[in-house]
Amino acid sequence: MTHHLHERPVATSAMLAVFADEAVLRHALAFEAALARAEAAEGLIAPAVADAIAAVCATSAIDPFELAEEVAVAGTLAIPLVKRLRAALDGEAAAAVHKGATSQDVADSVLMMQMVAAADLLAVDLKRICTALYVHAQRHASTPAVGRTLLQDALPIGFGLRLAQTAAGIDAAAHRLAREVAAQANIQFGGAAGTLAGLEGKGAAIAQRMAAELSLGVSLPWHARRVGVAAIASALGIAIGALGKLARDVSLLAQNAVAEAREPVIEGRGGSSAMAHKRNPTGCQVALSAAIRAPGLVASILAGLPQEQERGLGGWQAEGPVLVELCLLAAGSAAAMATVAEGLEIDEVAIARNLASADVGQDIGESVALVSSLLARVWKG
Amino acid sequence: MTHHLHERPVATSAMLAVFADEAVLRHALAFEAALARAEAAEGLIAPAVADAIAAVCATSAIDPFELAEEVAVAGTLAIPLVKRLRAALDGEAAAAVHKGATSQDVADSVLMMQMVAAADLLAVDLKRICTALYVHAQRHASTPAVGRTLLQDALPIGFGLRLAQTAAGIDAAAHRLAREVAAQANIQFGGAAGTLAGLEGKGAAIAQRMAAELSLGVSLPWHARRVGVAAIASALGIAIGALGKLARDVSLLAQNAVAEAREPVIEGRGGSSAMAHKRNPTGCQVALSAAIRAPGLVASILAGLPQEQERGLGGWQAEGPVLVELCLLAAGSAAAMATVAEGLEIDEVAIARNLASADVGQDIGESVALVSSLLARVWKG
Amino acid sequence: MTHHLHERPVATSAMLAVFADEAVLRHALAFEAALARAEAAEGLIAPAVADAIAAVCATSAIDPFELAEEVAVAGTLAIPLVKRLRAALDGEAAAAVHKGATSQDVADSVLMMQMVAAADLLAVDLKRICTALYVHAQRHASTPAVGRTLLQDALPIGFGLRLAQTAAGIDAAAHRLAREVAAQANIQFGGAAGTLAGLEGKGAAIAQRMAAELSLGVSLPWHARRVGVAAIASALGIAIGALGKLARDVSLLAQNAVAEAREPVIEGRGGSSAMAHKRNPTGCQVALSAAIRAPGLVASILAGLPQEQERGLGGWQAEGPVLVELCLLAAGSAAAMATVAEGLEIDEVAIARNLASADVGQDIGESVALVSSLLARVWKG
Amino acid sequence: MTHHLHERPVATSAMLAVFADEAVLRHALAFEAALARAEAAEGLIAPAVADAIAAVCATSAIDPFELAEEVAVAGTLAIPLVKRLRAALDGEAAAAVHKGATSQDVADSVLMMQMVAAADLLAVDLKRICTALYVHAQRHASTPAVGRTLLQDALPIGFGLRLAQTAAGIDAAAHRLAREVAAQANIQFGGAAGTLAGLEGKGAAIAQRMAAELSLGVSLPWHARRVGVAAIASALGIAIGALGKLARDVSLLAQNAVAEAREPVIEGRGGSSAMAHKRNPTGCQVALSAAIRAPGLVASILAGLPQEQERGLGGWQAEGPVLVELCLLAAGSAAAMATVAEGLEIDEVAIARNLASADVGQDIGESVALVSSLLARVWKG
Repeated sequence: MTHHLHERPVATSAMLAVFADEAVLRHALAFEAALARAEAAEGLIAPAVADAIAAVCATSAIDPFELAEEVAVAGTLAIPLVKRLRAALDGEAAAAVHKGATSQDVADSVLMMQMVAAADLLAVDLKRICTALYVHAQRHASTPAVGRTLLQDALPIGFGLRLAQTAAGIDAAAHRLAREVAAQANIQFGGAAGTLAGLEGKGAAIAQRMAAELSLGVSLPWHARRVGVAAIASALGIAIGALGKLARDVSLLAQNAVAEAREPVIEGRGGSSAMAHKRNPTGCQVALSAAIRAPGLVASILAGLPQEQERGLGGWQAEGPVLVELCLLAAGSAAAMATVAEGLEIDEVAIARNLASADVGQDIGESVALVSSLLARVWKG
Repeated sequence: MTHHLHERPVATSAMLAVFADEAVLRHALAFEAALARAEAAEGLIAPAVADAIAAVCATSAIDPFELAEEVAVAGTLAIPLVKRLRAALDGEAAAAVHKGATSQDVADSVLMMQMVAAADLLAVDLKRICTALYVHAQRHASTPAVGRTLLQDALPIGFGLRLAQTAAGIDAAAHRLAREVAAQANIQFGGAAGTLAGLEGKGAAIAQRMAAELSLGVSLPWHARRVGVAAIASALGIAIGALGKLARDVSLLAQNAVAEAREPVIEGRGGSSAMAHKRNPTGCQVALSAAIRAPGLVASILAGLPQEQERGLGGWQAEGPVLVELCLLAAGSAAAMATVAEGLEIDEVAIARNLASADVGQDIGESVALVSSLLARVWKG
Repeated sequence: MTHHLHERPVATSAMLAVFADEAVLRHALAFEAALARAEAAEGLIAPAVADAIAAVCATSAIDPFELAEEVAVAGTLAIPLVKRLRAALDGEAAAAVHKGATSQDVADSVLMMQMVAAADLLAVDLKRICTALYVHAQRHASTPAVGRTLLQDALPIGFGLRLAQTAAGIDAAAHRLAREVAAQANIQFGGAAGTLAGLEGKGAAIAQRMAAELSLGVSLPWHARRVGVAAIASALGIAIGALGKLARDVSLLAQNAVAEAREPVIEGRGGSSAMAHKRNPTGCQVALSAAIRAPGLVASILAGLPQEQERGLGGWQAEGPVLVELCLLAAGSAAAMATVAEGLEIDEVAIARNLASADVGQDIGESVALVSSLLARVWKG
Repeated sequence: MTHHLHERPVATSAMLAVFADEAVLRHALAFEAALARAEAAEGLIAPAVADAIAAVCATSAIDPFELAEEVAVAGTLAIPLVKRLRAALDGEAAAAVHKGATSQDVADSVLMMQMVAAADLLAVDLKRICTALYVHAQRHASTPAVGRTLLQDALPIGFGLRLAQTAAGIDAAAHRLAREVAAQANIQFGGAAGTLAGLEGKGAAIAQRMAAELSLGVSLPWHARRVGVAAIASALGIAIGALGKLARDVSLLAQNAVAEAREPVIEGRGGSSAMAHKRNPTGCQVALSAAIRAPGLVASILAGLPQEQERGLGGWQAEGPVLVELCLLAAGSAAAMATVAEGLEIDEVAIARNLASADVGQDIGESVALVSSLLARVWKG
């Protein structure tokens, strides 16, 4: 049973791959292997035992469909996964698998590894957008154009000013996202009650080794302290909103009665099933649709913050799928708007014509200097 | 690329099937076939042409992965789908495919067919819950128990009263959902600008025929009038919340210090990867997790209401995936709580012991009569 | 300390009055008086005692500022209010005040009395809007105009079709709101644990009498069964969204480059502090602003559904202020759009000019019939 | 018309004062005075003119009720305010008032001045909470207690560990809030179309002077670039959620069957109107109620991000009231939980008794070290 027709149109293939079964399993097995190696390094288990566990993790072939059925029953990935690993190992190694860890340690660490991968992907498209807008904004910094406020013609601006403002917003959102993921994508390792029990006082050291191996930040256990997750979710929501601003403006500029800019022609894109000659702002559609959906998803993450006791019931289990959805929407939006920004067709004749009809004068104030100042902070290729 | 590990744990297989590629394609092809037949019946196209179209729709084998790639580019399912159908037909029939329809007609009608299927599935599990709670509530209507308010012991209640109240809430939510879907799951057929143009004045008649064939309600075009979609979404959100109330109460009753009731033992469920003897309220976890996520999703649908002009940009495109998510969460929650309700283990000794320690008296007021009155409205097997 | 500058711009004075201190006190005192009278009628307290209580309720002069300080400490209105009433009565009557009731009985009943008043107010402005749009839509049913989809010129429509569609949406939302409030604005009376304890089996009869006196619906206690509250909140959110659709369309029509319609001139409205000659769509601004805020508020209500046990902690206490906010936003939006709809300036010359430039033909399909069918359901003056 | 009974219970008087009419007017007049002085310093207006404007701003007595009526019509505070100032000045000064500024410059700058004041207030109560939890956590770091996961008894913890984890979460949220307000509470000054037109190239210099005088950060105009507002809103939402975690845990500990900790006795607080001897967790109620409401409010801010063109319609106008609400909720929650944290009654006998019944062993793992590490980052008195 596949869901390509629901998943693909709002996300990129690359981001879908970040959250695919194969990736989940790879990260979960990497967690268990890293745990074994760290425990061996700290003298809790024998090196040969760790090697045996790591070897099984490296070669394990698990059917994700079957596993998912068991996960749905168990309520957590780790239980059926660890059971399989144990079944593939002999006594001492079987007993040592997952030692001192709890299901949530695996779930949260896997999710954070995926956040790192997702942020890396997003950075690429966000940078493409900033770079493209940088060029457009600079080129049109001093082109007089109608400035519009409250959807009414107001005073002239340099045409590039709106693009520079938008680029600055996207750039700020991109940096925020990168910063939050760098700070909050941390190893989760605390054991059943978050006390690092049964580890002979080596829990913190083990966590540190695992973090290094899995390219995550070091952290004390954060099972019910979800401020970091909320920070990542907020940053994703803000980035999607900043992209929505660009999409809103492009779609308004592309109205036939305005016609100052429009999306590039993409083979197979933007057509209408009923009106063959229409050129729809389909990239903007993807980004605006994402911007409508993201705020509610961020709210879901915030709603889960008051989690119970050492590890809550329902709250953290709700976060994973919501973060996935936010990353998919961000990817779909960023990819769509990167294409739009790079190929944006700007019509100087229409800009001049609209300004002439608007009868709002020609004084663009400090537009040129503002464009320079705004772009000074923005990524460039 | 599959996503079973993300999809399955929070939904049922049956509901995942409602939204699978196979179902989307089946409904979309049923739409095109019904359209052709209706247009033939109204004399707009030749019967033989309609037969040819319907035959292609019935036998079409489309790879959903490939199609999804094209949908992602086109921004809508109908464009690549209609293109394929046309390629499989000769001149007159090719030209007649999709006649007078627009992409959104297909998308909305398919979505509404899925809503009908989803509501049917949900009704089964919601009824199971009501039936099970009915039995428990009646059996324990006069069992004195601690009533608790603001999380503090308050006054005695009949133990069945809380269950009867919860059943009444779920029952009301279930009826609301069934009612809204029955009223709002309507055919979408308006053509490119919602004017039923190019149909020789037969548009309304065609829509009526299509609705009958596709088991949808009859409606005037509702491309940018999304009150019905919002009503369905709200009903789903309310149902998920009502199930969350049951899960909250069961999980509080199941606390070891209270121990008045707990989830049944399910092979492979509720265990801990670190504490083998633990019995986690895993069914409640699923339902509480859904209850945390649903409100934001409903908000997303409401946020899309102010759609532009004849057919909007981004708003309606955001609705489909969100309604899917709400249905998946509702299904996962209802199935989990049906199992919990049917197997709920109620411990009368613990109930009596807690009441004795609470020292709040024995007067359960009109509990018994209230249970009867509440249950009088509730579904029973 | 007043907050007029924050409150007034987004709401109407009339709706602010519905939730003012004076109204809260009036309703709360009406509750206590009705309770005493009902208990006297059912023989639980002496008629003279009920008269004494009712007399104090009728003449009580309470400083809301002082009371609010005590409410903030107590966590509920009823505690300091009942204390004041008792202090103003002698022994038997003092003891009889609030007999069998709990704080939440007062809070919920007061809130529902306010919902009834709010719905009555909203109905007036919603009907004004429908009536005005009815007239405009009918007058321009056959005026050919550019139909726009995905923010692009598409095919011609009758200009009145968009207005009729919007009117039908607002009308449906208005009827839904009226229906939900009529069905869900019910008396709350259950006592401390919702068992109607201490009332000698007369609890249900007392509730029925109180409902009649307070013009509320009859209901079994619904302390932790909040489906009805969620239904009212959803209906408010949907109404605000349907108004947002009108505002979105008017603001797009009012763009200088389109100029097909605009808001009427209102003395003091729509100006700019910097551009004296500008005519901003200020009514639309109010409605769009409300449409951005409402979805999150509805989500807050849905998030509170899983309330604990007999009466929850935090959930129902969150509902009151959120419902208030939704009613204020709905009122502000409906009043603003009533003014806009009634005074909407439609420019047939611009409509014709835009259609001519769009080069999309002249076939408006079944627009005229659709307008008639849509308007057939809509309120008219 | 006052709304004390709705406003006060969920907020503090001090925070209500931050957003009171008096404060709005004071800040708005400070903006206009600062603008005049800055323009004089840059040579755009005569020093005497600036003095005259500043003098009128300093002495202006404006009735907020009357002004609010005009604001409701105008759609913005600045228009009627500037009109009043002009009326109080003679020709040259009247003309110079508000020179180069737009309504949104005033609105946003006033809002940011209020954010600074709000953040200062919140920091005090958040620090009180951290300090109190610090002391409790340290004192009970090695007290063995039942650790609970998924609402079930799990493994032992040091009782202080849960408090230390919660303190670390609140501390992180507090620092995030302070950091975001420091970075984002910036002057808004761009003029009608955000170009700093009509200021002879001195716009940026004027903005810098104004920022210094008004204790705001320096910024390029950010009329439609709302990432900073969204960041502040998210930080408020996260703080409210982190406080909700504390409230959730205290309320669960305070259940009669658990009884390990409870809120302090506060005269007039936590009683029941029906059960005189009950001790409700009323502080937790306030914080949990705020935690239910905040996520939807943050979503509203995020939903407004895609604002149109130079200055949007509806989006930024929606932000002010929502930020106000978030600050009020944060204040109410922080004040309530400060009282709870400082007076928290911890019952070591109950803790030991529960641990004994739980039969989960005595190994608290690295709890003591974890408490130290967590507290090392937390504010202390």
